[in-house]
Amino acid sequence: MSKLSINRDTKLCMSLSGRPGNFGTRFQNYLYDELNLDFVYKAFTTTDLPAAIGGIRALNIRGCAVSMPFKEACIPLVDELDPSAAAIGSVNTIVNDDGHLHAYNTDYIAIERLIERHAIDEGTRFVLLGSGGMAKAVASAMRDKGLANGTIVARNAEAGQALATSCGYDWRPKLDFEPAMLVNVTPIGMAGGPEADSLAFSARTVAAASIVIDVVALPPETPLIRLARELGKTVITGAEVIVLQGLEQFVLYTGVRPDDALLARAAAFALG
Amino acid sequence: MSKLSINRDTKLCMSLSGRPGNFGTRFQNYLYDELNLDFVYKAFTTTDLPAAIGGIRALNIRGCAVSMPFKEACIPLVDELDPSAAAIGSVNTIVNDDGHLHAYNTDYIAIERLIERHAIDEGTRFVLLGSGGMAKAVASAMRDKGLANGTIVARNAEAGQALATSCGYDWRPKLDFEPAMLVNVTPIGMAGGPEADSLAFSARTVAAASIVIDVVALPPETPLIRLARELGKTVITGAEVIVLQGLEQFVLYTGVRPDDALLARAAAFALG
Repeated sequence: MSKLSINRDTKLCMSLSGRPGNFGTRFQNYLYDELNLDFVYKAFTTTDLPAAIGGIRALNIRGCAVSMPFKEACIPLVDELDPSAAAIGSVNTIVNDDGHLHAYNTDYIAIERLIERHAIDEGTRFVLLGSGGMAKAVASAMRDKGLANGTIVARNAEAGQALATSCGYDWRPKLDFEPAMLVNVTPIGMAGGPEADSLAFSARTVAAASIVIDVVALPPETPLIRLARELGKTVITGAEVIVLQGLEQFVLYTGVRPDDALLARAAAFALG
Repeated sequence: MSKLSINRDTKLCMSLSGRPGNFGTRFQNYLYDELNLDFVYKAFTTTDLPAAIGGIRALNIRGCAVSMPFKEACIPLVDELDPSAAAIGSVNTIVNDDGHLHAYNTDYIAIERLIERHAIDEGTRFVLLGSGGMAKAVASAMRDKGLANGTIVARNAEAGQALATSCGYDWRPKLDFEPAMLVNVTPIGMAGGPEADSLAFSARTVAAASIVIDVVALPPETPLIRLARELGKTVITGAEVIVLQGLEQFVLYTGVRPDDALLARAAAFALG
């Protein structure tokens, strides 16, 4: 669909992020297009979050994806927290119903879905590397899916311990055992970052594990995921997470759930 | 250009209006498309003007067309008034330079251009019907182009007299003479309005005039314009005004001035 189809009734959805990417814009616009929905999506950044959220309300912008560094700061600015956001004190999605702002965390929802899809056993001993906003979403989803046997490994002792305590997990400053499941929720392996070529876990630790999860979405195949695949491990990639969380945002904004074939095409377009 | 070309760097322009139309959205997006500019345009309405303007600032929205009922109310919310807006106390365009909001009135600019283009003589005796925001823009442009011999005719005595006084014109509650130039700045003849089939001036008054200006843009040919054409008068239509004011907005937002052929195509697309 052309930009020329935009009219006074077209609904705008958007994102707010410190450093906007293109995934959400490409993914959502592709689905609007294919499903012939009168929506358009655009990424924004801001240095004035309250005014930006006020603008969403005043302009009746239908929905807003929220990324770093706004995931916690936006909480006092919305009207209602969905359990997915309340459980972890972190928002990644705002849905605007005629001025009523309802906040969700679709990262949390996506992780829950992926745990179900891969039928990960509740008894699986796992380690989660990281302590930021996304780590909260992942750890909380693990806890709420019944995975009780977890360790948070984080260099930031305060944040790591707080996250571990909130989920009933252990905290360690570094990994000193070999768990069955490895979960990377740090930027290690992220394209363009300072550790793009690094492994989030040592090759020996990967070899000893059976499941490897990496939330880094770009590149779709991080060094950690590549090694885990080579070693025949079960993998869940950041690309899967970002697509699933974007799908849940799409459903919240439009009320329409694309089928798997369309979702795969949208993911390929947005990640390509 | 497809919506799929929208990315994190795409600039958003928009409009704020009590009852959004489609002209601006179609006109601006057509030109962005044809000139391959990384912009997208969408119309909005609001019930909270300060928050909407705050959102323009916070989201770094590049520009905003302002229509009824916000043309005066937005003045305290911007940082700087161009002479075109200051002269008449009415804004129809906000340009956002990284948070600095500069307000213009391109209706005023468009009327000045049309007076020049049609080489209307300064001595022309004219009557202007109306006293709203657009009437201020038109009367002020007339005054500033040296047309001193004007009469404001308005049922609203207070607004009519105030406008007349501010421009050095007469005011009368009804038309009781036959001027050389007739200017309609009321909704009479507007498609979908209660007086869509009415003539803003009597047939006899039109017959006695030599120039007829109607700012009603939809339909492009109002009953007044149709009659004036039939009688061989010089006419300036509301379609010409809306296209020229939109052109000046486009130039302010993008820094690019389309040529006449492209402008004609954009106008035909947006009005069609």
